[in-house]
Amino acid sequence: MELVWLVPVTGAAAVLFALWLAYDVLRRDTGTPAMQEIAGMIFEGAMAFLARQYRTIAILAIVTGVVVTIVVGSISEGVKPIVFDGVQVGFGTEEAVSRWEEGLLTGIAFLVGAACSALAGYIGMFIAVRSNIRTAAAAQNSLKEAITVSLRGGAVSGFLVVALSLLGVSGIFLVYSRILDNPPEITPFLIVGFGFGASFVALFAQLGGGIYTKAADVGADLVGKIEAGIPEDDPRNAAVVADLVGDNVGDCAGRGADLFESMSAENIGAMILGVAIFSVTDRIEWIMFPLVLRSFGIIATMAGLISVPFFTDSKPDSKQDPMTPLNYGYYLVSLLSVGGLFLATYAMLDDQWYWFFFCGLIGIATGIAFVYITQYYTSGSWRPVQEIARSSRTGPATNIITGTAVGFETTALTAIAISLALVGSFALGSQAEVSDAIPPFTVGIFGTAVATMGMLMSAAYILSMDTFGPITDNAGGITEMAGAPESARAITDKLDAVGNTTKALTKGYAVASAGLAAFLLFSAFLDKVKERLEIPLTAELPIDLANVDVFVGGLLGVMLVFLFSSLAIRAVSRAAGAIIEEVRRQFRSDPGILAGTSRPDYAAAVDITARAALREMIAPGILAVGLPIAVGLIFRFTRDSSVVVDGVVYEDASGWLAVAGVLIVGTIGGILLATVLNNGGGAWDNAKKFIESGGLVDEQGNVLGKGSDPHKAAVIGDTVGDPFKDTAGPSLHVLIKLLATITLVLAPLFIAT
Amino acid sequence: MELVWLVPVTGAAAVLFALWLAYDVLRRDTGTPAMQEIAGMIFEGAMAFLARQYRTIAILAIVTGVVVTIVVGSISEGVKPIVFDGVQVGFGTEEAVSRWEEGLLTGIAFLVGAACSALAGYIGMFIAVRSNIRTAAAAQNSLKEAITVSLRGGAVSGFLVVALSLLGVSGIFLVYSRILDNPPEITPFLIVGFGFGASFVALFAQLGGGIYTKAADVGADLVGKIEAGIPEDDPRNAAVVADLVGDNVGDCAGRGADLFESMSAENIGAMILGVAIFSVTDRIEWIMFPLVLRSFGIIATMAGLISVPFFTDSKPDSKQDPMTPLNYGYYLVSLLSVGGLFLATYAMLDDQWYWFFFCGLIGIATGIAFVYITQYYTSGSWRPVQEIARSSRTGPATNIITGTAVGFETTALTAIAISLALVGSFALGSQAEVSDAIPPFTVGIFGTAVATMGMLMSAAYILSMDTFGPITDNAGGITEMAGAPESARAITDKLDAVGNTTKALTKGYAVASAGLAAFLLFSAFLDKVKERLEIPLTAELPIDLANVDVFVGGLLGVMLVFLFSSLAIRAVSRAAGAIIEEVRRQFRSDPGILAGTSRPDYAAAVDITARAALREMIAPGILAVGLPIAVGLIFRFTRDSSVVVDGVVYEDASGWLAVAGVLIVGTIGGILLATVLNNGGGAWDNAKKFIESGGLVDEQGNVLGKGSDPHKAAVIGDTVGDPFKDTAGPSLHVLIKLLATITLVLAPLFIAT
Repeated sequence: MELVWLVPVTGAAAVLFALWLAYDVLRRDTGTPAMQEIAGMIFEGAMAFLARQYRTIAILAIVTGVVVTIVVGSISEGVKPIVFDGVQVGFGTEEAVSRWEEGLLTGIAFLVGAACSALAGYIGMFIAVRSNIRTAAAAQNSLKEAITVSLRGGAVSGFLVVALSLLGVSGIFLVYSRILDNPPEITPFLIVGFGFGASFVALFAQLGGGIYTKAADVGADLVGKIEAGIPEDDPRNAAVVADLVGDNVGDCAGRGADLFESMSAENIGAMILGVAIFSVTDRIEWIMFPLVLRSFGIIATMAGLISVPFFTDSKPDSKQDPMTPLNYGYYLVSLLSVGGLFLATYAMLDDQWYWFFFCGLIGIATGIAFVYITQYYTSGSWRPVQEIARSSRTGPATNIITGTAVGFETTALTAIAISLALVGSFALGSQAEVSDAIPPFTVGIFGTAVATMGMLMSAAYILSMDTFGPITDNAGGITEMAGAPESARAITDKLDAVGNTTKALTKGYAVASAGLAAFLLFSAFLDKVKERLEIPLTAELPIDLANVDVFVGGLLGVMLVFLFSSLAIRAVSRAAGAIIEEVRRQFRSDPGILAGTSRPDYAAAVDITARAALREMIAPGILAVGLPIAVGLIFRFTRDSSVVVDGVVYEDASGWLAVAGVLIVGTIGGILLATVLNNGGGAWDNAKKFIESGGLVDEQGNVLGKGSDPHKAAVIGDTVGDPFKDTAGPSLHVLIKLLATITLVLAPLFIAT
Repeated sequence: MELVWLVPVTGAAAVLFALWLAYDVLRRDTGTPAMQEIAGMIFEGAMAFLARQYRTIAILAIVTGVVVTIVVGSISEGVKPIVFDGVQVGFGTEEAVSRWEEGLLTGIAFLVGAACSALAGYIGMFIAVRSNIRTAAAAQNSLKEAITVSLRGGAVSGFLVVALSLLGVSGIFLVYSRILDNPPEITPFLIVGFGFGASFVALFAQLGGGIYTKAADVGADLVGKIEAGIPEDDPRNAAVVADLVGDNVGDCAGRGADLFESMSAENIGAMILGVAIFSVTDRIEWIMFPLVLRSFGIIATMAGLISVPFFTDSKPDSKQDPMTPLNYGYYLVSLLSVGGLFLATYAMLDDQWYWFFFCGLIGIATGIAFVYITQYYTSGSWRPVQEIARSSRTGPATNIITGTAVGFETTALTAIAISLALVGSFALGSQAEVSDAIPPFTVGIFGTAVATMGMLMSAAYILSMDTFGPITDNAGGITEMAGAPESARAITDKLDAVGNTTKALTKGYAVASAGLAAFLLFSAFLDKVKERLEIPLTAELPIDLANVDVFVGGLLGVMLVFLFSSLAIRAVSRAAGAIIEEVRRQFRSDPGILAGTSRPDYAAAVDITARAALREMIAPGILAVGLPIAVGLIFRFTRDSSVVVDGVVYEDASGWLAVAGVLIVGTIGGILLATVLNNGGGAWDNAKKFIESGGLVDEQGNVLGKGSDPHKAAVIGDTVGDPFKDTAGPSLHVLIKLLATITLVLAPLFIAT
């Protein structure tokens, strides 16, 4: 236990570090009054949206929290004693926690998780929308300073998300186990509500933000460029500010909530797995290990982040590629993570620690692999994007066809990398001989959990790079609209291009971590079923794909993934319709706007987009929450499959079998469809940029650049990819993890007793 | 056994009926010399492509047949005795069939299956490309006559496919069981090669045909309309004939092979299931039932088809909707199928027959449901297509976004309908108390098999409607190019529109039957594993989704579906590039072509497209065949999962576990992705047609018709949908079934012994 003190210390250090970063950013120059005016509008719009969104989410969350309390309380039978290897262990009463106690503790954990997730998103964005103008101001001086400001602004969000996840999970664990005096081996089951709360908020934050950002983007383009014939980002267009606001609420707040829940759900799932080993070894380290490893990750990330400015070289700004120092920083984080991994496994995981050390290495390597895979598919330097650009020469149709083919193709490396990581870490983990009483299956799954943890050690750094994206994007917009000098624009353009890459990277990272964590969360669900049915945790509980309930559950799971994406994509169209109407109304009611003599009402456009986005997020949100519950209840009450474990027949298993099918097969479908949507959209975006940068030539060798027919075709492809990569794809990450947490918390609903 | 005589009788009757239909079509008027010239070129091009394609496929099939013989012969241990309910049944020797005998019989069955599939495709298309001109000639007289000719021309293909499947499966069953004297309960395992051969040919027929048809279509459009600025179907474009040829080789030959293998694989799979029940009841009817039910289907279909002309009403041609008589014919087929289902179940399936009667009813109802679902999503009368048309007002990007959302949405009703059919037929089937020794699980799966059979009873009718599509499409082209009178064009236009609907219907039907059959084919694979491991057929062999090998297999299975689609879509782009080059070369080398003074070399364009299509079909074909084998072998030799059945541990199960994951989860992904591609593409196509027919108006109520900006946007959507719905989607149907047959035949490869 000697390392557990690291958890509160690094958690607090991360918060202090984030505060220092925030102070460092906020004390900087805020540029010219013209910049301040624009930045002020973005700030107001973003905070107004967030306030409105969180009000909606808070109502939904409180209602859901109460429902969860009542449902779990009334259907639960209280937490049962845990039977391991045939022996009841850990505590002696028949009923360790009463049913209503379980309901209440789960409901409270849900609300705490929801609140932490919301808080992390809110504070992070508060700083991000104040960093944009400071980055714009810094860009008037030097690239190095601009990188420093934007990355530090992004890192506030990154560190707060990681710290709040760590402190939230360990805090609630501490309260439930020490203060409320529950045995440590049942506490992880009581705090699963935390993960559900985090996913719940993340789902709506990502959906609402994703719909907002693309509705504003598409709407501004359609009504401005196509209808009114004015250029992009023209101040006469009432939707431009909404567009800049959107970058923040989608990429920054949405992805923050996404990774917050990744880490929380993964932490809790890994702790549940640790329970099985703890029950035999009686060493609490197996339960606490995920929290300690995360702590080492925070230390590594802090060091990496501080070092980034030192990696900028002495070349003049125009020759520097800002991606280079960011990459070096990431390598440093990875290297330090390996060291932390060594210390944590060596100190905590008994004498077979090295197997888990190698599992963690696989996770760190997987993170790096996804950085390369994503860059290969979405950067203009490689075949896929260039292929899309070339196909634009024959028009928008071939651009879309090729982009779709590329999007589909990206599933290959993604699936192979995840497969290698899962099989590799499982195989290594199952070699560890922790105790004769623990079957290789259990330690194998713990191995995949360690790989996931290893990968997520760098989460704060990845999140910092992600939030860097909207900050630099906004800085570019502010610089452009405020008429800053050419040299400052060159710097923000460069940072903006890097921001696109880092945003794509984060999505690849989120998909990969969801893929790795899926397996572990699924095992946690099965452990919950076992706990409920009083099946020993060491027994294998088969989810037989040849069972009709599992098969149909799987079919409905993949269907959910497609239907959810359909609703998310369509929501963007509808919300874009609302903003288009508003801009048209302003043009009609005040002819001075188009003439440039009066200022459009930006706030009204921001407000209407916000309302539309929040309205449109409800349907996909309800589908995501409702479908697994509906499937579980329908199958529980209409079907009657049974399951045999160690010769004992468990009747009426259809409910949880079908839910397991939805969860696992839906996860597989979701990971791959999210990959298609994210990478396809990213490739379309960069094919357009590739053409704009003069990379495309015709058969005679003439450059086909901005304004050419291929460029117009590529713009269409980019617009198509927008809701794919910024609304549907990222929302699918959250959906996958929501499926895991919702089934975990509501498992008793699906189990007939 | 009293009804088994129906099998050869109706098989022969179907062949005779097809011959009579062919005679009836061929004796009809062949129109004007101008028509004959164009039709002659289409005929030559189509037959030349088919000859070339079948030469390639024949080489691949013979090599594969030899490899299958050697592989099965060398890895097999011969067919083992079948153990049922703890007792060895059926035959008494330790080794009923020697290993090399099994290899040889499997290889021969493979080649017979491949040959039957190819023959059905070849003859059917031979008649189809002779029916097009006769339909064009008939259209100069009346709608009724034109429907009769085109439907009968299509029916030649429909009946030959069904008859050859029935006669092929029953013939090889007869030869292997009676003449070679193998026990009837092991014969179904010996003829699985027939299904593999059928899938193998179908895969390449559908891929090659699908790539050809869309490469010619897209290539002709791009080089003619966009580059040279000449109208669609202009005789100066060397690619127009290739385009008309493509309609035949893609829709007609491809879909014929697709449904041939559906029926064959489903027949054999159902017979394998019947073995389990036969082993206990000793009633051979359980094995022969699928063949008898198919025979009743043929009778019903003949009656329905002959009656179609009588359903055309006495209204003048311009008021008639040709879909109406086709629909009435389908209802009649369904009604007669219910009667046949009653007779077959009552006479053959013991005193619990009524449960299976209801299962069959579910199948017939599912067929009808898919007719409606497909029409809802792809016809201009309903919300989805109109939504796409409306979104075209804001340009191609919103058209594509909405079309994608609609395509994703179509998975919902598809998945729900398949789920209801599967769960319903399983639940009803498992109620049947055939014998105490047979567990509900076995009869439940037999119930899903009966549902599949019930649905496929109308296969010949559906196939006739499908081939009707390219015939009327060609008839329209011939009428247009030969300058026939306006009235004839009005008739062919009407038929062409109906042909688009029937083509879409067939795809929906193919997906639904693949979904229903999947479960049964998967059970056949498990039975094969049980046979090999000497596990009783009544035991449950769990394919545990929580096992890392199964999970990773599933991930790779869905990845296969995406990657295969990516290759198929990209193949279209590449092959289109080849035809574009050729047309450009002709324009350059003979300026008289564009001036209209010299005739382009149509044959050269046809030939080059054929070569390109055949070259491009190899990569996706190899992926489809190679990936499941690679996964099986890699997991067999690198992983070591074990499976427990009735307390016995079976070590080294990873190979077949991973393959089972690929098969089942890949099937789920394939069904849904095919639905997205087929229906999305169909909806885009009909959104364009909806605009052309004047259905779209602007805010002031003005019609936005052909040539308007929304129409141009819709044309782009249609072009994007082309390779989705005519190449990738239909090829996925075949891929799904190929996965089932290849794993069934090569199962011993993946089982360590």
